[in-house]
Amino acid sequence: MPQEFTLIDQYFLPLSKGLLPNELGIGDDGAVMTPPDNHQLVVVTDTLVAGVHFPLDTAPADIAWKAVAVNLSDLAAMGAKPGFISLALTLPENEQAWLNGFAKGLTDICHHYQVPLIGGDTTKGPLTITVTAHGWVERGGALYRSGAQVGDIIAVSGVIGDAGLGLKFALNTLTKSQQACLNSEDIQFCLDALNRPNPQLGLGRLLQSHATSAIDISDGLLADFTHILEQSIKHLERQGLTLGAEIYLESLPLSPAMQKWIQHTNEWTLPLSAGDDYQLCFTVRPEHWINLHKLAKAQGFKITQVGRITGQAGVVVKANADSEDVITNLLTSGYQHF
Amino acid sequence: MPQEFTLIDQYFLPLSKGLLPNELGIGDDGAVMTPPDNHQLVVVTDTLVAGVHFPLDTAPADIAWKAVAVNLSDLAAMGAKPGFISLALTLPENEQAWLNGFAKGLTDICHHYQVPLIGGDTTKGPLTITVTAHGWVERGGALYRSGAQVGDIIAVSGVIGDAGLGLKFALNTLTKSQQACLNSEDIQFCLDALNRPNPQLGLGRLLQSHATSAIDISDGLLADFTHILEQSIKHLERQGLTLGAEIYLESLPLSPAMQKWIQHTNEWTLPLSAGDDYQLCFTVRPEHWINLHKLAKAQGFKITQVGRITGQAGVVVKANADSEDVITNLLTSGYQHF
Repeated sequence: MPQEFTLIDQYFLPLSKGLLPNELGIGDDGAVMTPPDNHQLVVVTDTLVAGVHFPLDTAPADIAWKAVAVNLSDLAAMGAKPGFISLALTLPENEQAWLNGFAKGLTDICHHYQVPLIGGDTTKGPLTITVTAHGWVERGGALYRSGAQVGDIIAVSGVIGDAGLGLKFALNTLTKSQQACLNSEDIQFCLDALNRPNPQLGLGRLLQSHATSAIDISDGLLADFTHILEQSIKHLERQGLTLGAEIYLESLPLSPAMQKWIQHTNEWTLPLSAGDDYQLCFTVRPEHWINLHKLAKAQGFKITQVGRITGQAGVVVKANADSEDVITNLLTSGYQHF
Repeated sequence: MPQEFTLIDQYFLPLSKGLLPNELGIGDDGAVMTPPDNHQLVVVTDTLVAGVHFPLDTAPADIAWKAVAVNLSDLAAMGAKPGFISLALTLPENEQAWLNGFAKGLTDICHHYQVPLIGGDTTKGPLTITVTAHGWVERGGALYRSGAQVGDIIAVSGVIGDAGLGLKFALNTLTKSQQACLNSEDIQFCLDALNRPNPQLGLGRLLQSHATSAIDISDGLLADFTHILEQSIKHLERQGLTLGAEIYLESLPLSPAMQKWIQHTNEWTLPLSAGDDYQLCFTVRPEHWINLHKLAKAQGFKITQVGRITGQAGVVVKANADSEDVITNLLTSGYQHF
């Protein structure tokens, strides 16, 4: 990109601050960072493609926020402390207003979560943003998808489904009567959930010492929870054991907007299967739940039990824990993350 | 991408081998890697966009090789040992033959340089490949662009300019008489230089303890060397000093193909300014040159003096070290890398 010089100096160099004296950010062939003692490095990468991962008219500041947030969310799900990010930005043209907006969103999130931008690449081409985020976790202390056990409580953070509803609004696919059931505050809440997700880094650190498994909800609760099940089963198969789960509809944590939506439409697809919430889904030994819940509350994190791990294959959705009736019974899919 | 599961299992999972027992590659929210004691992490990112960084009809195996090679080359320029890579692959469609070829090139280079692929992302969109490579360097031992001093010898590895000639051939922009000056072996040599660059990782490790500065030649000798000058000057400006350089045309290391090309065209643009060679350009204290040259030769690396750092601003190109006549005098540009 011909004006890479100005672009980097003006927009990105200011984000390469706060490094240690013997570290190096933007400006050489690569960045040089010092690992904290007795820690392991956690590396995550996610790409957002215009028109695929966000509507084409998304505000550039929101695109930047989200490109970083989805990666920090992966760090949160591993229980890692955020370290730093690199950015590969492919841009069709060097448009000042767009770049100003993008840089604003990038600055907002880098400052908010105190992650410096240590390098990257800017190239000319169709709008594509790849962020690689790096975090640190105590040696041997990473939180995986694979530790769920029979009897574990399944829980989620925050409220879920709102980003999916925000996307319906952004894409203008709501009917008039559907829109009428939501007020402007609801709509803004859902759009914020879609465009400005808050990676649960603080909660992830707490879960790192309390949960048996965790994942972030990027593809929807059921799809992502299935990864926990699949990975956890792999560790049990040799012993001839399997795992399944019960999910309780009436326990799902819903925002006022989502409550109105479900009352109006009478369907639960959004909290069960919509993606982009970037809350955490995790499992906890039942004897640790009360203590974890107390600690989370004290630190300002809302966590809610939504189900329980069983020894029977498949995911059963029930109205609540006491219900005998099964609403739907899902086989675990072959879905897998990179 | 809907078939992400198969794609990853089939093509990428086999490359996530050779990790330590407490490390994790592909399959969770992120990878978990253990830093070697007393080392710093070096992180580099480069994106290749179809039609911008390689001709659209480039073989997929060559695209994969190059996407990794250009990143390993940045690690080489920092004097780092290669560690591992992550890959963000944006693909217009899930085409089996293309993916087989891409996976073959990826496997070739990952095996050749023993760098596992530890994760990444696959998305649907215009063909774009972003690789983030991670390496390790002894604490405080990274090789930067910024250490050149007056009197240093300027040197390059291998031969230069061939990738630029290969690109002319690949794009079919050579005249008949230009083509006629090259035989098929020359042409293959230049195409290999373009499509299968060999990152100078071994030499980079040697330079780490012998050179005062280094950079890899991605944009052309003069452009890249200018970065060394600019970064090194920054460290001297406070003392009221500046730096410049003499480059000797007749010293430039040229392949048989490039020698014929220059004889035929009588112009030196390719070795001076063509990019994509991924050789190293570096500076060495004159008193260390003979020893370094001996060590490099013993390890099978060709290094050649091509100039000298002076105390006068600007880059002067001369026929040779003894010539009084200046062929061209360049001011250092404002060009900068991310």
